Amino acid sequence: MEKTKVAIIGLGTVGSGVARLLLDFGDRTARHAGRTLWLEKVVVRDLKRARDCDLPEGVLTDQLADVIDDPEIKVVAQLIGGLEPARTIMLQLLESGKDVVTANKALVAVHGPEIFDRARELGRSVAFEASVAGGIPIIANIGQCLSANQIQTLHGILNGTSNFILSKMHEDGAAYDEVVAEAQRLGYAEADPAMDVDGTDAAQKLAILAHLGFGARVDWDDIPRTGIDTLDLADVRYAQKMGYRIKLLAVAQLVDEGIELHVSPTLVKAGRPLAEVGGPFNAIRVEADAVGQLLFYGPGAGQMPTASAVVADMIDTAVGRTAITFRTLELWSNRQARVGPADYAHARGRFYLRATVDDSPGVLAQITKALGEQEISIASVLQHEPESEGQPVQLVIMTHETTAGAMM
Amino acid sequence: MEKTKVAIIGLGTVGSGVARLLLDFGDRTARHAGRTLWLEKVVVRDLKRARDCDLPEGVLTDQLADVIDDPEIKVVAQLIGGLEPARTIMLQLLESGKDVVTANKALVAVHGPEIFDRARELGRSVAFEASVAGGIPIIANIGQCLSANQIQTLHGILNGTSNFILSKMHEDGAAYDEVVAEAQRLGYAEADPAMDVDGTDAAQKLAILAHLGFGARVDWDDIPRTGIDTLDLADVRYAQKMGYRIKLLAVAQLVDEGIELHVSPTLVKAGRPLAEVGGPFNAIRVEADAVGQLLFYGPGAGQMPTASAVVADMIDTAVGRTAITFRTLELWSNRQARVGPADYAHARGRFYLRATVDDSPGVLAQITKALGEQEISIASVLQHEPESEGQPVQLVIMTHETTAGAMM
Repeated sequence: MEKTKVAIIGLGTVGSGVARLLLDFGDRTARHAGRTLWLEKVVVRDLKRARDCDLPEGVLTDQLADVIDDPEIKVVAQLIGGLEPARTIMLQLLESGKDVVTANKALVAVHGPEIFDRARELGRSVAFEASVAGGIPIIANIGQCLSANQIQTLHGILNGTSNFILSKMHEDGAAYDEVVAEAQRLGYAEADPAMDVDGTDAAQKLAILAHLGFGARVDWDDIPRTGIDTLDLADVRYAQKMGYRIKLLAVAQLVDEGIELHVSPTLVKAGRPLAEVGGPFNAIRVEADAVGQLLFYGPGAGQMPTASAVVADMIDTAVGRTAITFRTLELWSNRQARVGPADYAHARGRFYLRATVDDSPGVLAQITKALGEQEISIASVLQHEPESEGQPVQLVIMTHETTAGAMM
Repeated sequence: MEKTKVAIIGLGTVGSGVARLLLDFGDRTARHAGRTLWLEKVVVRDLKRARDCDLPEGVLTDQLADVIDDPEIKVVAQLIGGLEPARTIMLQLLESGKDVVTANKALVAVHGPEIFDRARELGRSVAFEASVAGGIPIIANIGQCLSANQIQTLHGILNGTSNFILSKMHEDGAAYDEVVAEAQRLGYAEADPAMDVDGTDAAQKLAILAHLGFGARVDWDDIPRTGIDTLDLADVRYAQKMGYRIKLLAVAQLVDEGIELHVSPTLVKAGRPLAEVGGPFNAIRVEADAVGQLLFYGPGAGQMPTASAVVADMIDTAVGRTAITFRTLELWSNRQARVGPADYAHARGRFYLRATVDDSPGVLAQITKALGEQEISIASVLQHEPESEGQPVQLVIMTHETTAGAMM
């Protein structure tokens, strides 16, 4: 059987999973690729660190040159996180003639244009299935399986940490800080979970999907975003009372003006498929003009789900499918974007508003007047009696459809 | 821009949808394929029949030779239903050097081995995404995106007609015959719905997925199957009372012995994702060793969803991805099957049993004794008082886990 030599850069959680799939299940990948994917080198920074996988003699190295200088290594899984040295190594690999697979969403979202352009100039390819929604093959589905469609909307639960935290708050009625601590204990949240809970991670993934699904050229940092770190347990409870669940949704929507993008905690009617996505899972609902509505659900992170996506990309690259897809899709190309950004202020939707107000006459009148001046019509109001006299009260308002601009 | 000439055989519902996507949205397919898919010919039996799509002058023909003899036509969507002349035309197209795309599940399930072998000998390819689950790209997902995995189980709602009927019975409490008539009015069921409601359609699709996902070589007709035509509204009601929904599930499961396959009306706990798949929709839950659990949900039939899958296959074929996949997957090859069939009698599960029995002493004792003799343990029993004395009564039993053989 033919053999394609491959390498891994970075032996963290995902890297170890990829190595395990290649080494322990080599017959399987060979059967699906029609050739052996031979793990020739694994590059790490520190040779002495303990690893949770056994590599054959001579595979582990701390010299990137062992990969760069070996023309027989054709496919490299670049599994270092962060922007640098990941970006530099990515470019070095492409320059040396390798096709590259990556799981690094920040790298693709931030340096995608530069990296993809360079790959194209060099006649190389970059595959990045694992960068969005972990084990869910959303990149292949949008980039390839739905190619007869114009995608109209994407609604994604793309951050597993946020979804785990929200699910726990809903189910156990536990406070935000408590649940974050539990998520950290269980390994669902980083020691510093800021990027997960403030919407950064979801916005970077959304930017990648917007490039892929709409031909938009969007800087992830321009995507309006609100994280779940703005929520109180009270919001979760009020939402539940009204028959909703709060989900951190990343939304892309084609409108007359262009493409509307945002990441926001969103009230989803209980019973709707996205409302029922619990724990650290991800899901993406796609609406497209020919196929209608599709939903993809699965693990959005984790060692083996992510490794599954990386190895699928390595197989696709080794057999030549990635090269074709990469060439035809013209991702992040310098061509004119097919669609420009729409002003988020014009985005239409219903809004949830919670205010802590003085329990004094005229307060509700003032608020409703302010809303009325923006032509925001109120669908429902919830206000309970104060716990004791003189205490401030919680006022919860659900609006009818209006624009984000009016609400701001 | 480069041009690939394509043709369609059969201008029924799906054929018209495919023609529309190619003609009205040619820029889109060109963008996703990096080349124009040029609709050169559409072959029909009767030129005089009214069509619901406008074709350019000179495209419509009743001569298959116009396609066969034109070496410039590279990709053909063969969209005739049934086994013959579909099979003969399929082989003629392959012999004349065309790569073929089909939506004909019966043809693939019955003549797959012959057609795929011949295509391989001739260096041609066959793509069949639209043959299973309509607009859900399950063939690409299993055959390509999950290639780093060993799939362990597939649970599919693969027949939209049955699912529509069951959903209606659940929601409206309407009787089976009534709902079938409504499904026929709405176009969700054929004039003769036998193949849909007796499990044939789902078994043929399951056979295709079993080949693809497990490397099994299975004759669809050997798959044990029970249709929804065996159900009464009473069953739907009892299931509901116990907190379940009845779904027609097609199940493939890897066990020590081999692969267990069956199609059966199944009680799925309310709230589980598959229980919530309503109307004519399809869904497939996949469990695989690396990725864990994935769920795919979408339209299982219909003109444009099916056309979406066919055109995606035509693009994949035109750009060369299909050829690679077809070669590496060795579908229906003459090689030894990787896994043999397991005896359905050994399949483990819990069973629902409804009996209409005389309201006389000792009846329940007799039934429970018979179950006991097969070592079938009872989880719950439901028996209401008879409507009037001397009337037979309905006895509903849910068993604990046992084997299909013991139940039979």
